[in-house]
Amino acid sequence: MGERRHPDLDDIRDAARIIEGAVLRTPFLPAPKLDELTGANVGVKYENMQVTNAFKERGAVVKLTGLGEAARERGVIAMSAGNHAQAVAFHARRLGVPATIVMPEQTPFVKVAATRGYGARVVLHGELLSEAHDAAEEIAEREGLTWVHPFDDFDVIRGQGTIALEMLADDPDLEAIVVPVGGGGLISGIAIAAKALKPEIEIIGVETVLYPGMWAALRGEPAEFGGATLAEGIAVKAVGELTLEIVRQHVDDIILVKEADIERAVDAYLTLQKTMAEGAGAAGLAALIAAPDRFRGRRTGLVLAGGNIDPRILASIMVRQLARAERIVAIRITIPDRPGVLGEIATAIGRLGGNILEVSHHRLFLDVPAKGASVDITIETRDAAHAAEIIAGLRASRLDVTRIDTPAEELS
Amino acid sequence: MGERRHPDLDDIRDAARIIEGAVLRTPFLPAPKLDELTGANVGVKYENMQVTNAFKERGAVVKLTGLGEAARERGVIAMSAGNHAQAVAFHARRLGVPATIVMPEQTPFVKVAATRGYGARVVLHGELLSEAHDAAEEIAEREGLTWVHPFDDFDVIRGQGTIALEMLADDPDLEAIVVPVGGGGLISGIAIAAKALKPEIEIIGVETVLYPGMWAALRGEPAEFGGATLAEGIAVKAVGELTLEIVRQHVDDIILVKEADIERAVDAYLTLQKTMAEGAGAAGLAALIAAPDRFRGRRTGLVLAGGNIDPRILASIMVRQLARAERIVAIRITIPDRPGVLGEIATAIGRLGGNILEVSHHRLFLDVPAKGASVDITIETRDAAHAAEIIAGLRASRLDVTRIDTPAEELS
Repeated sequence: MGERRHPDLDDIRDAARIIEGAVLRTPFLPAPKLDELTGANVGVKYENMQVTNAFKERGAVVKLTGLGEAARERGVIAMSAGNHAQAVAFHARRLGVPATIVMPEQTPFVKVAATRGYGARVVLHGELLSEAHDAAEEIAEREGLTWVHPFDDFDVIRGQGTIALEMLADDPDLEAIVVPVGGGGLISGIAIAAKALKPEIEIIGVETVLYPGMWAALRGEPAEFGGATLAEGIAVKAVGELTLEIVRQHVDDIILVKEADIERAVDAYLTLQKTMAEGAGAAGLAALIAAPDRFRGRRTGLVLAGGNIDPRILASIMVRQLARAERIVAIRITIPDRPGVLGEIATAIGRLGGNILEVSHHRLFLDVPAKGASVDITIETRDAAHAAEIIAGLRASRLDVTRIDTPAEELS
Repeated sequence: MGERRHPDLDDIRDAARIIEGAVLRTPFLPAPKLDELTGANVGVKYENMQVTNAFKERGAVVKLTGLGEAARERGVIAMSAGNHAQAVAFHARRLGVPATIVMPEQTPFVKVAATRGYGARVVLHGELLSEAHDAAEEIAEREGLTWVHPFDDFDVIRGQGTIALEMLADDPDLEAIVVPVGGGGLISGIAIAAKALKPEIEIIGVETVLYPGMWAALRGEPAEFGGATLAEGIAVKAVGELTLEIVRQHVDDIILVKEADIERAVDAYLTLQKTMAEGAGAAGLAALIAAPDRFRGRRTGLVLAGGNIDPRILASIMVRQLARAERIVAIRITIPDRPGVLGEIATAIGRLGGNILEVSHHRLFLDVPAKGASVDITIETRDAAHAAEIIAGLRASRLDVTRIDTPAEELS
């Protein structure tokens, strides 16, 4: 290997001309509330505002536009359960190129439906990505389809590199760009373009500690992979050959972030910036949260790479943050089992300004007296101080109250 | 009345020069997925990307910048529990003007904290907005503070009007602009600017059926107000005098939307555009959902006015949408009360691809046999067809299954 040509600045400038009008020139905007959160001077590149809500369209358009007449007619094939699938499907239809997308059988129906909605033929095959990959190769071979690789491809890399041209055009004073790393296509394109325009800029990649593929590959070490991650879009075990070479040459460092950092970043984008980031898309902000000293006071561009997060997971992240802020608390009260007691408690909580969200009543626990009962109550409060006030108020009414969630000060 | 001068296009152009660099020139972008949803040709003006996440900063900056030296030193006062409070507080601090914000006592702590966080003195007074208003007038009088009205003010109106200049600069082909209406400041500024630049453009206001203040005022009818609304930012009973005159003169129509339309609009912004809209901020999209024929095929600009929605309410909207799509279903199964039954049921659901979210077990209901029990199970599915498949599968195992939520086809 090492013989494949790397894209250069001119290739990326060509790519920018190719995608013009086909892909949104997304906003790159200051984010003063993220400055406060992280101590850096943050700008956000909103790639989640693309039609398919992720940067993948850039590379897909360059690749599809470059096909010869015969290849266009036969069509393209890609293997992806995520953003790449939708990007290829959407732009293939726009360009009149037949597209086949292979996904593992367990792919959430929403993603299958979205991809079919863009007119692609979707083939569900295998339990693992590797099985889907093998099936896709077989179909490609049999039907003469052009393979659209999600990252290890000259055209795809230069397409993603257009993001850096736009960021530096909007803010030539950028000192660092922080980029999520899955297979390495996004950061490769960005690093080539940004370093060519401004050699002193720092380009930092971000992976989760659970999938440190590029981090390990750069060190020539075997990596350990696995575990459930919010950032499934960058949970890639095998980085590209081309991308590894480019990253080695142009990228300054890779930061590894924990799940808790990613969760906080997703929540911060939502509550402070009112924008929806998927876990992988928020990895850049997670790095600023995890390693604030490294970016303090520096003009730092974040690529918010994608926004396709499952609504139920997003809802759960939001509720967990409320629990962390003690705006939702859970208590257990042991009470005598006689009529009216629950009414008295509920009234007391209301008088203290708490909003009861859930009640469950137990008579069978052995740690309550035979003639007693225990009741678990989930309460919405204004904040941690208000939560403490409500609990103190109930205790002042001689109720036996225990916290059954973990108060925030005990969480790391 | 009727003697106060209305701002004209030149006043609004001046306002644009005043706010330049102080307020974000927000993106105005096409939204193909909203085209599909509504049948219109939609562009979205993302005012939720302002630092305080709402358009209110524009008017506040024009008002604050126009103060004389003595007034600046004495300071300003505003009464608001919402976006106006944060806009005034944030820009007053930036301009070195002392700010007092009066809020009702029950204002959620998050909003109080955000406003204090911008350095304002916050005075909590009264249970109702009207009581807070009276307190604010008294403080203004006593301390000689300048009143910053949220909408019925020349400078505030021309500040909000800058939005229309930006929208028409970005897309001169716009045929209609749809704008949420509370007190009428936003739509007044937008209507003056847009009609002056392009007389044939249609300007449509949106109110909720629960608070049709402008709609009724235009007809000279008394309005009935009230009820819990997601769109508390436009739940205004008394529209402005100046704004009523301007709306009568320049606005083409007011559309009233239902709570369900607003809820769908908030969800659509989130799931399709990956952006967070508060109920009032999503009213424009709600109008396109409620009255699609009116906008079909027309180039329509929506002002996404603000993004400050309570995270718990947003989480609940998202989960309710999942329930509507039958991606979350609830069933009740009556079972013999013997060891192992629950395990068999859970195993069967898992084999059918359902993900169990919640289980509750009842032995006391009179409609189950004395030796039986009933169990309520909440299941996550891939979609409505999958939900039906799981229920059919359980019934095929001779289980007595009832839906205890409302299947989507029975919802209006």
